[in-house]
Amino acid sequence: MNHQTPPPEPIRELAHLGHHGLYTPDLDGSLWYFVDLLGMDIVEREGSTVYLRAYGDYERWTLRLSQREKPGLEYVSWRMWSPQALDRRVEWLEKHGLGGSWVTQEYGKGPAYQFEDPDGHVFRLYYETENYVAPEGKKPVIPVNVQAYAGRGANVHHCDHVNLLAQDVRACREFWEEAFGLRSYEIIRRADGSEVGAWMSSSLQGHELIYTQDNTSGNGRLHHFAYVVPTREEVLRASDIFADARIYIEAGPSKHTAIQGFYCYTREPGGNRIEVANGGYFVFAPDAEPYVWNLEEWSQKPGWGAPIPPQFHLYGTPVVDPEKELVR
Amino acid sequence: MNHQTPPPEPIRELAHLGHHGLYTPDLDGSLWYFVDLLGMDIVEREGSTVYLRAYGDYERWTLRLSQREKPGLEYVSWRMWSPQALDRRVEWLEKHGLGGSWVTQEYGKGPAYQFEDPDGHVFRLYYETENYVAPEGKKPVIPVNVQAYAGRGANVHHCDHVNLLAQDVRACREFWEEAFGLRSYEIIRRADGSEVGAWMSSSLQGHELIYTQDNTSGNGRLHHFAYVVPTREEVLRASDIFADARIYIEAGPSKHTAIQGFYCYTREPGGNRIEVANGGYFVFAPDAEPYVWNLEEWSQKPGWGAPIPPQFHLYGTPVVDPEKELVR
Amino acid sequence: MNHQTPPPEPIRELAHLGHHGLYTPDLDGSLWYFVDLLGMDIVEREGSTVYLRAYGDYERWTLRLSQREKPGLEYVSWRMWSPQALDRRVEWLEKHGLGGSWVTQEYGKGPAYQFEDPDGHVFRLYYETENYVAPEGKKPVIPVNVQAYAGRGANVHHCDHVNLLAQDVRACREFWEEAFGLRSYEIIRRADGSEVGAWMSSSLQGHELIYTQDNTSGNGRLHHFAYVVPTREEVLRASDIFADARIYIEAGPSKHTAIQGFYCYTREPGGNRIEVANGGYFVFAPDAEPYVWNLEEWSQKPGWGAPIPPQFHLYGTPVVDPEKELVR
Amino acid sequence: MNHQTPPPEPIRELAHLGHHGLYTPDLDGSLWYFVDLLGMDIVEREGSTVYLRAYGDYERWTLRLSQREKPGLEYVSWRMWSPQALDRRVEWLEKHGLGGSWVTQEYGKGPAYQFEDPDGHVFRLYYETENYVAPEGKKPVIPVNVQAYAGRGANVHHCDHVNLLAQDVRACREFWEEAFGLRSYEIIRRADGSEVGAWMSSSLQGHELIYTQDNTSGNGRLHHFAYVVPTREEVLRASDIFADARIYIEAGPSKHTAIQGFYCYTREPGGNRIEVANGGYFVFAPDAEPYVWNLEEWSQKPGWGAPIPPQFHLYGTPVVDPEKELVR
Repeated sequence: MNHQTPPPEPIRELAHLGHHGLYTPDLDGSLWYFVDLLGMDIVEREGSTVYLRAYGDYERWTLRLSQREKPGLEYVSWRMWSPQALDRRVEWLEKHGLGGSWVTQEYGKGPAYQFEDPDGHVFRLYYETENYVAPEGKKPVIPVNVQAYAGRGANVHHCDHVNLLAQDVRACREFWEEAFGLRSYEIIRRADGSEVGAWMSSSLQGHELIYTQDNTSGNGRLHHFAYVVPTREEVLRASDIFADARIYIEAGPSKHTAIQGFYCYTREPGGNRIEVANGGYFVFAPDAEPYVWNLEEWSQKPGWGAPIPPQFHLYGTPVVDPEKELVR
Repeated sequence: MNHQTPPPEPIRELAHLGHHGLYTPDLDGSLWYFVDLLGMDIVEREGSTVYLRAYGDYERWTLRLSQREKPGLEYVSWRMWSPQALDRRVEWLEKHGLGGSWVTQEYGKGPAYQFEDPDGHVFRLYYETENYVAPEGKKPVIPVNVQAYAGRGANVHHCDHVNLLAQDVRACREFWEEAFGLRSYEIIRRADGSEVGAWMSSSLQGHELIYTQDNTSGNGRLHHFAYVVPTREEVLRASDIFADARIYIEAGPSKHTAIQGFYCYTREPGGNRIEVANGGYFVFAPDAEPYVWNLEEWSQKPGWGAPIPPQFHLYGTPVVDPEKELVR
Repeated sequence: MNHQTPPPEPIRELAHLGHHGLYTPDLDGSLWYFVDLLGMDIVEREGSTVYLRAYGDYERWTLRLSQREKPGLEYVSWRMWSPQALDRRVEWLEKHGLGGSWVTQEYGKGPAYQFEDPDGHVFRLYYETENYVAPEGKKPVIPVNVQAYAGRGANVHHCDHVNLLAQDVRACREFWEEAFGLRSYEIIRRADGSEVGAWMSSSLQGHELIYTQDNTSGNGRLHHFAYVVPTREEVLRASDIFADARIYIEAGPSKHTAIQGFYCYTREPGGNRIEVANGGYFVFAPDAEPYVWNLEEWSQKPGWGAPIPPQFHLYGTPVVDPEKELVR
Repeated sequence: MNHQTPPPEPIRELAHLGHHGLYTPDLDGSLWYFVDLLGMDIVEREGSTVYLRAYGDYERWTLRLSQREKPGLEYVSWRMWSPQALDRRVEWLEKHGLGGSWVTQEYGKGPAYQFEDPDGHVFRLYYETENYVAPEGKKPVIPVNVQAYAGRGANVHHCDHVNLLAQDVRACREFWEEAFGLRSYEIIRRADGSEVGAWMSSSLQGHELIYTQDNTSGNGRLHHFAYVVPTREEVLRASDIFADARIYIEAGPSKHTAIQGFYCYTREPGGNRIEVANGGYFVFAPDAEPYVWNLEEWSQKPGWGAPIPPQFHLYGTPVVDPEKELVR
């Protein structure tokens, strides 16, 4: 059979979001939030840095939480599909003058190549990792599972996606598409061609990496990390837990128009915005085009969903414009 | 308007199932089950007797758990609609030669009138009770609620119904209908008129008090207590918790034909059977007649639902016939 | 045992909300909404009046929908606990100069006593009713059930509660408490003692009859009817159905602070506001006092839940102040 | 960085399960099942062949249902990641002497390469396809969606996985791993190395293609197609629909040990087994090894879940051994 000049085949070298680093000015408060309210476990602790995992993570640890003066993102990482994929992407970055450097990683993770996206967020690529082995008392009854189901607090399963603020959303999106073959599933575009938001994924999941417009002058800022639970009911249940724990619920529980996930947004005691999330569609078509919203269409917010408060589009960590961002 | 000889009006003097007493030969094991797995709280402890509550209970405590050689029921209690209702029912019992005696109760509950049903189960009637007042750290954010939502384990809301084994189910059912106006919503009846099961309620809830046939020679035995969660999803979630905690799941999760509740049956470490339950229909009609199943119709088990293992109809606490009851 | 002057015992003569009459200026549109979107069935049709039922209703019909120039409430009815209860309440009403008159009812319902509440809403009391008997093709597999599960649209189970607008909420509440023993579970009260909202019930359900402040000059107006589905998931699912059917979703899906039910509010094509609802707490204590919110506490809206749009507190049927009510 | 002889990189050329062909001896009965009970839509009809789609399918049609004397599988198809991937896999098949032939396809689908797996099931590979464009009245309010949410019956979203019976499960598994890079996530293996079941996927979904042991002498038989709904609650809801429609529920609703999906198995009127399914885990690790169960471990059935009836492991379509398979 003949195909007339088919398009070049996609790059597919990122396997999934890996482990992330987060800064907090209130380590004890943040640990209470991640451990008692979200239900995560502490794996290692070294001075004022704590390594955590969710019960669904196959890797030994996936969150590195460090005490620092201000909250915000330390790094986001991707696990690669193969050692070869790791080498190829590093080569690509260096060839295009976008390279960084190799860093060593802790507690069972192999070397990572660290670099920055166009907005200055730190990213890491790695392949080698140590799988979690549950100790006695946490062994699951079904051996395929990683860890026994604990049922503590919101009991989040794993980190599902990351949303970063950027001055130039389009530049960030194009970087990831070109360098790593991330697929964009939804884009909000202004009449001048600049973009307000982009939802990207390395797989059929509707979102893994999101960029939205930073409406302050900051760079390299975090909008939120999203931890996933298996049902919308559990997002509602998490909201009950947060409300009674007097954790500020900034938005939701409700449903997003983009990707259509069900959400509840809180700020952990260190100030970082965290989403408890469920759902969002899957994209099966290998040739799916991103849906591009214009601002008018987007502003009509079709479908249902609670109003989003203005500070949702302003606040990020670290805060750079307290007068605008800290209003509630 | 004229109504020709309407039927006598119903007695409605029981408000709801109150607090219950349970024996356990393994108090520590039972406490792990009720506190860590079901999510209940210890309110008071006095020697080898512990007083517990579920987060939805408005009363200060609702379960009295006592160490004893064998598991089983200490007592079931009903709170009355009014002091007058309490007096009237005591008068009725004594007038019919079925009376018992007044007992004092602990930790905020007023005097109870204690007596036995036809199978020898101990019951109490009471009106005075102390409401729970949440301490700092457990105060709910909505003041109408009793207690903050903790989200620990199965996080049961309250005890929904009690199932007792009896040698003569029909005699027990008729006793409660006649003396207290309990309404029977479903009955399973043999061709000879004797009964295998009866589902009764003081309210529009489909079941509060159930009697089923004791297939051993025992008397006064417990089939199960049922603790309710707000969704079927939470029954499934509780099943995950029990499975990974290596708690024996005897039946379910699935749906009952009678009353149509969704269930998961386990045995707490002391040996008592406990159900985590959701649902069951409500009966709104004031003149609803019980649905009477004959054995043939019942055995067809219309609708869906997993097969029930034989020991479900044998095992009770305390065990009287180990050779039959302890088979798994 | 001696109780020193216990309070008088409660009146409990209302069994449950019965059938209701609703006016619509767009009968075809309303039928599409109630039948195709809510999943109700047409039972009888006579000219421009249609009698409907939800699959969970034990009565033959529960909604009378009539074409009229303007939407709004025809009547709300209560089924009584007994014929004697019906006679006693009629006697009470007439003795207090609040009486109305007997009316005949259609299709299997016996005579009703019709009267008005203090705001002019029409109410009916009745006892005799014909139960629904499912025809071939609608017979449920479990004979206890009323009707086979159809799974059409939102598939509502029955009408759960009614919310009426009133000029004097307190007067309406006190009328129902005094005349019928309805229990108030929550009240919002202004500093001057007048009330903004009252949530009342004849049973342990958190709400059956609600009054909220009419912020127009109207009388006898309807805020909403609420149809119940068995899970919050089905409220979310109903929202998907409404959104894709281009039905205006005025509020939700989210959770109310009062009674804590989960809701989705739409306007049916005739203009009447309809809620698809799940949940709300149960009140088991026979001596539960209503929780009285003051306006300041209420305005803080503790717990989670989406903002309610202003027209939710203005719009009712029939519309009396289009300039205020019809803003979206 | 140096990786010492990393393993060869995986083949990843299958995008997802595509459209399937199914035979039925009772076309009208099957259409009632797929349209009224599952909620699918008829797209085209040509004589005794009907083309259907589920509301979540992005392709114009995904099920080809044809009248034939006996039920069973016509074909299963895969959509490829790219035209190049299609060409490469055809080349591989032909080079290994496993080739078939090109066939034309109907209603917007491009040519497919048709061949047989080691057990004789017919498969197709294709790339070109026509996307569904919703007509007026079925346009979704959110333009990213394919079709308005109809809310009819079980309202299945798409076909999630296919289970085929095979005489030599291991040979089938190895064929797909070697030729197409399918990843096996769970395998049940006998002591002699032969296999009873294999769960495979082209993506992070836990299962797309399953082989289980054919316990008759048949070849090329179908165990089941699985249609997915977004929540476990909807599997329970589907079970209510099936039960009241008097559709035989063979197994469930309950949870599988392998892949841990929630299921309800019925036989559509034509005799083919159909699952309504939710869940099953995702596999994120690019280097995940399949979990290999031995028979002893498998027979212990860790975790919860209803007993599976024996005919679940016997019955397939077409039936070859009525005496064994048709027992209920």
